[in-house]
Amino acid sequence: MMTPGKVAIGTKNLFMPSPVTLVGANVNGKPNFLTVAWCSIVNNFPPMVSISLYRIRHTRAGIKENGTFSVNIPSSRQVEVTDYCGIFSGKNVDKSRVFDCFYGKLKSAPMIVSCPMNMECSLHSTHSIGTHDLYIGNIVEIYVDEDCLTDGMPDIRRIDPMVCTWKGNYWLIGEFVAKTFDAGKRYKP
Amino acid sequence: MMTPGKVAIGTKNLFMPSPVTLVGANVNGKPNFLTVAWCSIVNNFPPMVSISLYRIRHTRAGIKENGTFSVNIPSSRQVEVTDYCGIFSGKNVDKSRVFDCFYGKLKSAPMIVSCPMNMECSLHSTHSIGTHDLYIGNIVEIYVDEDCLTDGMPDIRRIDPMVCTWKGNYWLIGEFVAKTFDAGKRYKP
Repeated sequence: MMTPGKVAIGTKNLFMPSPVTLVGANVNGKPNFLTVAWCSIVNNFPPMVSISLYRIRHTRAGIKENGTFSVNIPSSRQVEVTDYCGIFSGKNVDKSRVFDCFYGKLKSAPMIVSCPMNMECSLHSTHSIGTHDLYIGNIVEIYVDEDCLTDGMPDIRRIDPMVCTWKGNYWLIGEFVAKTFDAGKRYKP
Repeated sequence: MMTPGKVAIGTKNLFMPSPVTLVGANVNGKPNFLTVAWCSIVNNFPPMVSISLYRIRHTRAGIKENGTFSVNIPSSRQVEVTDYCGIFSGKNVDKSRVFDCFYGKLKSAPMIVSCPMNMECSLHSTHSIGTHDLYIGNIVEIYVDEDCLTDGMPDIRRIDPMVCTWKGNYWLIGEFVAKTFDAGKRYKP
């Protein structure tokens, strides 16, 4: 018997909200970037991030070739170019000139100058799942635009990242709700 | 040489924004819930979700015991109880009475009635990474509050989920920016 008020909508991947990132890798020596929403921190010490990529994705060859990739956080001002990188594959269009790039410690993970936050990653492991492969990377360095830091830490209001829903919309970050590891102290069981 | 305007802030797990979820499992036959921000869709067909849990987490025993878990999306009205579940461990406090629960197809993954969206999962695989273990689950069903659906699909404005930053704040979802797989058509390379 269904719980009153609840509707079962099937086995869909309708998680929300998902972060909006641009994942970069050098494919045949040229930077390529792909829009990725299926991205998460997965380990604390050392810090690691995961990205899930459809098996036909062009970027995968570059990650395999170099053992490196980048996760770039675009600001909402970059929504059109961000979405462009998700619609058009590097197999068909040359995305190497879309962004000005810079390189860090690893020398082979292209990062986007105009994105306010950039995570430089070395490949830790690859896990074949189904239609997608999960790539886990060690975060070897994070770069942030100087004017997006507050007390040396990345400031979400200045970075102005987006979240999205699956085959849906991009959304801004809204109002402050509460502090983490703090609001719960006011809860009375 | 550093790229002008960029500041290297080290190897941190400062990804943003992260979704806010409550992961549930029955531990020794009693529902337990844990706040999880390191959560992402990882596969399309079949739909799968990943959660990353610190190795000492109480909830892990329940996932192992039953091979099932739930991912619940709280609304911003639930911020205090959501944060509470992240501060206090099921090892020390009994969280089984915090929420009214319901069960679905799997019979052993407790889901939170008051959360507007619930994902019922069967364990697909576990990956030991470092301080954390990654649990990948098949999404066997999604339940949504009837009044949070628009045309049969979960409506982010009605569900009113939150995002967070690491050791930072909870934030609301803000204004609409653009449609996915659409805004990029207006970008001119």
